[in-house]
Amino acid sequence: MAKGKMTATQRQYDEENSMSCGSWCEYVLVVVLSSLLLLASLVLVLFWTFYYRKGYSWSEDPAKQFNAHPTLMIAGFISLSGFSMLLYRISRCCRKIYVKLFHMIFHALAIPCVVLGFLAVFESKSFSDPPKPHFYSMHSWMGFVTMGLFVFQFVVGFFSFIILLCCEGATAAFRAALVPVHASFGVTTLMMAVATCLTGLTQKVYHDVGDEYSHFSEEGIIINALAMVLVALGIIVSYAVRRNSLHIPAKVLISERL
Amino acid sequence: MAKGKMTATQRQYDEENSMSCGSWCEYVLVVVLSSLLLLASLVLVLFWTFYYRKGYSWSEDPAKQFNAHPTLMIAGFISLSGFSMLLYRISRCCRKIYVKLFHMIFHALAIPCVVLGFLAVFESKSFSDPPKPHFYSMHSWMGFVTMGLFVFQFVVGFFSFIILLCCEGATAAFRAALVPVHASFGVTTLMMAVATCLTGLTQKVYHDVGDEYSHFSEEGIIINALAMVLVALGIIVSYAVRRNSLHIPAKVLISERL
Repeated sequence: MAKGKMTATQRQYDEENSMSCGSWCEYVLVVVLSSLLLLASLVLVLFWTFYYRKGYSWSEDPAKQFNAHPTLMIAGFISLSGFSMLLYRISRCCRKIYVKLFHMIFHALAIPCVVLGFLAVFESKSFSDPPKPHFYSMHSWMGFVTMGLFVFQFVVGFFSFIILLCCEGATAAFRAALVPVHASFGVTTLMMAVATCLTGLTQKVYHDVGDEYSHFSEEGIIINALAMVLVALGIIVSYAVRRNSLHIPAKVLISERL
Repeated sequence: MAKGKMTATQRQYDEENSMSCGSWCEYVLVVVLSSLLLLASLVLVLFWTFYYRKGYSWSEDPAKQFNAHPTLMIAGFISLSGFSMLLYRISRCCRKIYVKLFHMIFHALAIPCVVLGFLAVFESKSFSDPPKPHFYSMHSWMGFVTMGLFVFQFVVGFFSFIILLCCEGATAAFRAALVPVHASFGVTTLMMAVATCLTGLTQKVYHDVGDEYSHFSEEGIIINALAMVLVALGIIVSYAVRRNSLHIPAKVLISERL
């Protein structure tokens, strides 16, 4: 009977251990894969621009000024925002207040990227000869929706963060109710950013690569690879943010066996 | 003292009531808006095809055969799948087993749409003169990812549904663990479908509308409007699926006041 009881306890312990091990593996896999994809998107857009599009410039060369647009938008809306979301979701080592602060700083760093990215395409079109029209494409309309969502999220996040510092106790219920809405719209903003990038890349590939695209040209494949990285990113980051098991309780990480 | 106690009870009752009223308004708004947008996407793609693209055909006219592709893909991946997800999330009137069954039937109805939609573009390209190459664009690569996710979701959902009928008790824990993964990948599949549609529409607008697009041509605006409907759909359906308050407990709906 005692043996049977011991075996049952052992089994229960092993089950707990195997579950924590599974969660731990999932956690490491998601963090490593997301980080690699976030970096890969930036590396690919830089490689594409330097190798196929002759690098960057500002007002002195409108064609090259355009090149800053995809790079800065991917840096701001995808890499920095993606890292910021991931950081908030997976951080286990510091106090929550520091995690929130870094979450906000990463998003704040995305703002100059987005503003300069917007200016790059606006000036590039205005100063080209003849000037090109603005805001006619679904890409630009989607861009406005994405920027709107980003600003809304930033203002709401910042507002609740300021309230948190001023009157922590009084706003607890309001902030608790806000968390799932903020998280849900955060994922939606990233998905919108990914979709907007994909329509932008489709436009760009038809403008620059043209008929060669349908013959599997090198540049076309690089752009498709960048698109696939963005797609994979959208899938894995939204999975990471929504997955409850990635919120591993501290007691599972600081195992009793250690 | 008795008066104070009564007032506190009254306040608590009113708070509960106002919360349920807020949730009810949110619920109705989400259901009505999502349904309108799901129908609008289908109406807009039909209007676009009949009014600007000369309607439908099959093998006898490859150019018109192509027109079946956006319509069937939007019908399958967006309208039917979207209704299916929404139905599962918002149903309150029937037993869970019937809701699951309808969820599966709606997704099953999407399969012939997707298969025929795929055949429409494949045959249209193969039979055009000269034949056009296949699977070079990021739209087609994204299409494969979306179809893969759809098949994965359908097989996993169907498998767990069959198990449910065979040995309900033994698989309860497994199915409970599966639910959030299935829901998460469901939203991701819809987001992927929306993004794939948007890249497809961008391609199409550059092929068919051409330079007129940048001069705010009528057809261009209709396609952009369709794109915006898809974007709004993506935002609202993903919000509806993730929002816990839309899972109103029965006791709130069947109010004690009734």
